[in-house]
Amino acid sequence: MATVKEVAEMAGVSVGTVSKVLNGIQVGEKNKEKVEQAIRVLGYEINVYARGLRAQNTYTAAVIVPNLYNQFFALFVEYVEKAFSSRGYKLMLCISSGDAKKEVDYITLSRQNKVDGIIGITYNDIEQYVTEGMPFVSLDRHFIQQVHCVTCDNYGGGWMAGTVFAKAHCKSLLYVRTGSDLSGETMKRGRGFEDYCKSKQIRFEVLDMHDIDDQNGLDDHNRIYACFDTFFKDKIVNGKCIFDGIFTSGDYLALMLKEYLEKQEIVVPQDVQIIGFDGLQLYKDGPYMVSSIAQPIPKLAEKCVDNLLGLIQKEEVEMLSMLPVTFVEGGTTKAVY
Amino acid sequence: MATVKEVAEMAGVSVGTVSKVLNGIQVGEKNKEKVEQAIRVLGYEINVYARGLRAQNTYTAAVIVPNLYNQFFALFVEYVEKAFSSRGYKLMLCISSGDAKKEVDYITLSRQNKVDGIIGITYNDIEQYVTEGMPFVSLDRHFIQQVHCVTCDNYGGGWMAGTVFAKAHCKSLLYVRTGSDLSGETMKRGRGFEDYCKSKQIRFEVLDMHDIDDQNGLDDHNRIYACFDTFFKDKIVNGKCIFDGIFTSGDYLALMLKEYLEKQEIVVPQDVQIIGFDGLQLYKDGPYMVSSIAQPIPKLAEKCVDNLLGLIQKEEVEMLSMLPVTFVEGGTTKAVY
Repeated sequence: MATVKEVAEMAGVSVGTVSKVLNGIQVGEKNKEKVEQAIRVLGYEINVYARGLRAQNTYTAAVIVPNLYNQFFALFVEYVEKAFSSRGYKLMLCISSGDAKKEVDYITLSRQNKVDGIIGITYNDIEQYVTEGMPFVSLDRHFIQQVHCVTCDNYGGGWMAGTVFAKAHCKSLLYVRTGSDLSGETMKRGRGFEDYCKSKQIRFEVLDMHDIDDQNGLDDHNRIYACFDTFFKDKIVNGKCIFDGIFTSGDYLALMLKEYLEKQEIVVPQDVQIIGFDGLQLYKDGPYMVSSIAQPIPKLAEKCVDNLLGLIQKEEVEMLSMLPVTFVEGGTTKAVY
Repeated sequence: MATVKEVAEMAGVSVGTVSKVLNGIQVGEKNKEKVEQAIRVLGYEINVYARGLRAQNTYTAAVIVPNLYNQFFALFVEYVEKAFSSRGYKLMLCISSGDAKKEVDYITLSRQNKVDGIIGITYNDIEQYVTEGMPFVSLDRHFIQQVHCVTCDNYGGGWMAGTVFAKAHCKSLLYVRTGSDLSGETMKRGRGFEDYCKSKQIRFEVLDMHDIDDQNGLDDHNRIYACFDTFFKDKIVNGKCIFDGIFTSGDYLALMLKEYLEKQEIVVPQDVQIIGFDGLQLYKDGPYMVSSIAQPIPKLAEKCVDNLLGLIQKEEVEMLSMLPVTFVEGGTTKAVY
């Protein structure tokens, strides 16, 4: 590690001149160049200093999300930013578009102590990069390796969707999903729904479109419509659908399904009821896009931030925080309450 | 500016020990404390160094938006992040919620060279903080002081909405707006619309709800509905609305208006046609929320980033970049094309 004096000697200038350059005070262009070159040659590295004294003290965190098109991600980021901001933290935003390299880049930032920690919604196998002791909180995703995770009660939400259909006397149910096949909390939505149907001996089927997901959290709606066409070909006969209740893994998928069914002259919710997942609204405090199992987005965000700050401060933090969900009506179910 | 040697002298340790602390290599806890204290006392300031050598070289920029609830802001941030990312820049996200203090905080970061520059959608009088020479690009907002601005053709968009109604033979038009009263590009939407109506001698009225805006870019829909009630009391008589075409300053306002009119049993678009502004879609590549004057969001974001990087590199950058808009159909206008 070079001293200012050594820098001055190599540059052939006075210590005062080096000091001026370091302080951003104007000096002759030639002297400035000499000093900067000496600093480079001697490896007078700012980050080394930072790492020594200011480790875990950048007051900057990062959040990784696949996109902001999906309102769930946008609102999650909004509340994460607010929770960090109220604690004096700045937030780096990484939109991964499902790109594993970009996700790993941010994990590297954390390793270099350029950010204190990361909150991530990731769809790639990046667990090998998340080393033990690195402050990292994952939303909705269990990594194979032990990673701190915050999630809503996905299993309970699926079960809840089943109870809503049962109360409305539905007799033939369908679960439709898209999404990553990586071990994740969202898989449990379907499992909770199926377990409820089995427990009540309600007929159900599953339409699994996992292969359609483009890994960036966005559904390709043309391919989804093509899938619907194939699947519903023999399920909609003479304007009647053999299902009277359909649960989907997300609200956007529910919206697309509603549009699709209406084009086939199936009336929602009179003929077929639909329940999505997430609880997205058309606008703030506005109507829900569809009837849905709503996630508590602000609370999920705050929990992620609390847990991450706990990890940064080397406190003990629970490995999994699971928050409750609620059913919300959005016009795609019959009111039976 | 202290040297490492001075730090070592004050701490009563060797230069090697100081070097180790600075390099994050383990030393005795007592020596580490002494060194850290000496560094603090002597004011061996890391940021001063950063300012001198690394000025405008942090490869980090900041974006300020009022919220991410509004899809326009969310998508703008998404494309800003992508444009920066492809150029090796990291992005700090600031959600201002209309809080001027938070906006100013980020401008201070820029002054301290902790970020290279800022792109902002701001609704406060922060122009006194944006000093000359600070890389700052504003979307949609002219500051009193000269600030680089990127915007869509708001005046042309308003004019365009007028032409769409005229083609559909509308006879009685209304412009409804919410939003900040600060000198901004969005004011021009109404002006373009009014100028078109005047030029064609089409009857028009204005419902200005600027006092309803809560300064954070979100419309309070309860207060908006109350305003609608008062305004439309004598404008909807016997199930007939005296207007047959309504242009709104944004898509969310158009959505709320559509819901409101439908509750009054006015049929959209048969009885009243509505055109919003922004061109928001229910989901990526999905149907438009309403018929609208669409902003080219990806291009606006890329232009902001291009212009900001130009300013950072001290190139000459145009003060105002204005991008064209297009009309998109979203079910709230009659197809006449």
